[in-house]
Amino acid sequence: MADGFLSALAGDVDIITDPDIVSAYCRGWRGETGRARFVARPRSIQDVSKLVSESVKHGFKIIPQSGRTGLVGGSVPNQDEDQIVLSLEGLTSTFETSRTNRSLTCSAGFRLSEINQKLEADGLFFPIDLGADPCIGGMIATNTGGSRLLRYGDVRQNVMGLTVVLGDEHGTVLKLGRDWRKHAIGPDWKQMFIGSGAAFGIVTECVLDLQLRPKQQAAALLSLQDESALPDAIVQLEDRFGSLLSACEFMSDNALKAAYAHTRHLKKPFGHDHTPALVLLVEISCDWPLTEEDRSLQDVLIEGLAGMCSENENLFGEIVFGRAEEIWAIRHAISEGVRALGRLYAFDLSFARQDVLRFREAMTLTLDSAFPEIKVCDFGHVGDGGIHFNLIDQISDDDWTTERERSVRDLVVRTAAEDFNGCFSAEHGVGPVNFRYFETYVPAEERRLSAALEAATSGQRLGRVHFG
Amino acid sequence: MADGFLSALAGDVDIITDPDIVSAYCRGWRGETGRARFVARPRSIQDVSKLVSESVKHGFKIIPQSGRTGLVGGSVPNQDEDQIVLSLEGLTSTFETSRTNRSLTCSAGFRLSEINQKLEADGLFFPIDLGADPCIGGMIATNTGGSRLLRYGDVRQNVMGLTVVLGDEHGTVLKLGRDWRKHAIGPDWKQMFIGSGAAFGIVTECVLDLQLRPKQQAAALLSLQDESALPDAIVQLEDRFGSLLSACEFMSDNALKAAYAHTRHLKKPFGHDHTPALVLLVEISCDWPLTEEDRSLQDVLIEGLAGMCSENENLFGEIVFGRAEEIWAIRHAISEGVRALGRLYAFDLSFARQDVLRFREAMTLTLDSAFPEIKVCDFGHVGDGGIHFNLIDQISDDDWTTERERSVRDLVVRTAAEDFNGCFSAEHGVGPVNFRYFETYVPAEERRLSAALEAATSGQRLGRVHFG
Repeated sequence: MADGFLSALAGDVDIITDPDIVSAYCRGWRGETGRARFVARPRSIQDVSKLVSESVKHGFKIIPQSGRTGLVGGSVPNQDEDQIVLSLEGLTSTFETSRTNRSLTCSAGFRLSEINQKLEADGLFFPIDLGADPCIGGMIATNTGGSRLLRYGDVRQNVMGLTVVLGDEHGTVLKLGRDWRKHAIGPDWKQMFIGSGAAFGIVTECVLDLQLRPKQQAAALLSLQDESALPDAIVQLEDRFGSLLSACEFMSDNALKAAYAHTRHLKKPFGHDHTPALVLLVEISCDWPLTEEDRSLQDVLIEGLAGMCSENENLFGEIVFGRAEEIWAIRHAISEGVRALGRLYAFDLSFARQDVLRFREAMTLTLDSAFPEIKVCDFGHVGDGGIHFNLIDQISDDDWTTERERSVRDLVVRTAAEDFNGCFSAEHGVGPVNFRYFETYVPAEERRLSAALEAATSGQRLGRVHFG
Repeated sequence: MADGFLSALAGDVDIITDPDIVSAYCRGWRGETGRARFVARPRSIQDVSKLVSESVKHGFKIIPQSGRTGLVGGSVPNQDEDQIVLSLEGLTSTFETSRTNRSLTCSAGFRLSEINQKLEADGLFFPIDLGADPCIGGMIATNTGGSRLLRYGDVRQNVMGLTVVLGDEHGTVLKLGRDWRKHAIGPDWKQMFIGSGAAFGIVTECVLDLQLRPKQQAAALLSLQDESALPDAIVQLEDRFGSLLSACEFMSDNALKAAYAHTRHLKKPFGHDHTPALVLLVEISCDWPLTEEDRSLQDVLIEGLAGMCSENENLFGEIVFGRAEEIWAIRHAISEGVRALGRLYAFDLSFARQDVLRFREAMTLTLDSAFPEIKVCDFGHVGDGGIHFNLIDQISDDDWTTERERSVRDLVVRTAAEDFNGCFSAEHGVGPVNFRYFETYVPAEERRLSAALEAATSGQRLGRVHFG
């Protein structure tokens, strides 16, 4: 089987057979492992098409893999036989910026950081702000969100067009959408390939809607008197700053302390011995040039937050201003800091904004009584309803069991979904990690439609997750 | 057949049989006519479900109808037997605003103007700005765009959730999405019901992502020296004003003159005897409160445009400032003014922004030589790539033929699509009017997917257009 496959592709597609390299491509960001017969690195859409076609003919399953920064195992092969990892890294032939259209046509293998570096000279950027540095193909397949969704929307809202390869024996290539900002020409099929992993096809090229780079930014930290202040805080921040508001991030004291402990050089903005229970990171920014007559955004932010606090002493506590980079450094140190505390159960939940901290309050109480060894170290994007409700399980290794972890995970997701109308994956996707929750919380009727689409796109041999 | 149908629904759904009223529901905005056995006005999602179920059992076709302001005939029945008009007007039971979540859950029968009136007290609005006043259900089914897409996106980008009723014998109700701003839980099925007419189901309720109402706006008119200045104008407006820019509309001299002639009280901003060949309407706005220390947006606009003009005398001509309402009154008078000139062939095209006026220039030359009786009276949303390339055919009634009209229409759409990579419907939808172009320019492979989805959703008996 393999010989016929390799000879059919010889000279066209770069196929890696070295077991050490192959096994590196079979390890996920969170340590998942699997196995594959080969790693294929096609360099063109035509090569992807040919690879799919030959894989179908030879009975291989294809696991498309983008930047390998995913957190739900969606691009890591499992232990089945006859899997091929299809890496998008080699797809970098197209990069065409239009400043007039404010759009970019590019291959799926570019990393987010590369895209934004290349766009800098034109004063443009792709406004999805993530801790990781994935390739754009995987970002689209996942529909990533990030810290500035509040202002710019998710990946879906910033994609104008896609080229995808279906999983049929022809490796059919579909070009869906163009560099049009406005269109109403019937079913918008590209939407079904955004956020669906590789279940219906492989994203090989895209047209992105770009934004103007911010010309000025200002950031501050604001402590809340208690959880009930959060909805008011969001409303008042929007009333004061409108769409200047480009981020509204939440950090708990446990999360902040974990960041300080792990990243020693961080400044402790609220003083050496004091960490407020609940802190918001507030950022405002503008993408037009301010003149000498205009207030700086730093002044706008200082005056606005000071006004909010003086009018609402019962809601808000301290304000800390500082350089935006220093303030974001604290936020960015949290993930690794929390991970370093021990056994991590990570959750990526989202809610209507009024429900985020209501959930947090109730869930923390429930966990305190049911699992007293668990420490809540949460943080996240409350401005858009997202929260990384991360837990550290301090139980001893001897007492830990997979059943325990599973019952904690199920309790949290069940409480979020059933009691607080929440969503089990805000921005990380489904993948094998969340598939159990997909099956529980996505209605059968939707899964029936997905099965019909998988049949119509021949997605059966593509990817780790099948939504039907 | 009808008796069994009526008795099955008796007491549940308001069914109109009066032929005068029924025939009023069979007339479209542009004068199209058709016929229907009844008009049904369900008041709840359950009633829609029951109506669909009984219609399927009794062999009726259902033509869902929203505000009857569509321009492509998508909600007007044809001359077939056994059609029922399903009016969404009665669906007004739900209207729940969340200021904290900045979202609205509402039934499909509310008009855009009603929605925005009701949201005014909360300082919110649904930011799709249209000349017409459709119901929200039809706006979603069409994916309308409007004058402020440049800033806020299209309907799709502002919908968080949908409740739809499928066309099967159970009248299956699907609730797709919620009041979540952030989610990555696999295929986002609501997307396939946005912009697809009623081909896959009937939109009965929605969750809308709302925006903060503008706190200050300023508008001006800017004349261009010639067509080639447009791409530069768009780039320079964005460089100067960034995302303050909330509209960038184009008006040709013929369109302006038609507006002046039809709406006598309009001020002629460039003087009584002068109309520039190409004029942009530029609007900037902000949704946060300005303080006394801040420049007014009027000043920002005046200084910015003056700077642009002095640096680019070869590109831009005159600037006219004025009250925003007066300036928009000119823009809004164009549609009716052009219509009043005579026989209208209306086009709703979109392009990448660099191609809009390249198309216009080439197309005008071609029409001048092939159809000298045709007068181009175009205008539109060039900031987002849209243009209403409207033509007045001044040929005598005796010489006019349907073949002539058709050949003009085909020439324009073919030139747009084939020579300038354009789109045959920017914001009006497909409907019977554009279906021929859908068949020509949407690839067979996409239509195959649509056929599979129509089968899976039992859409065969729903709506005027089938995309498979």
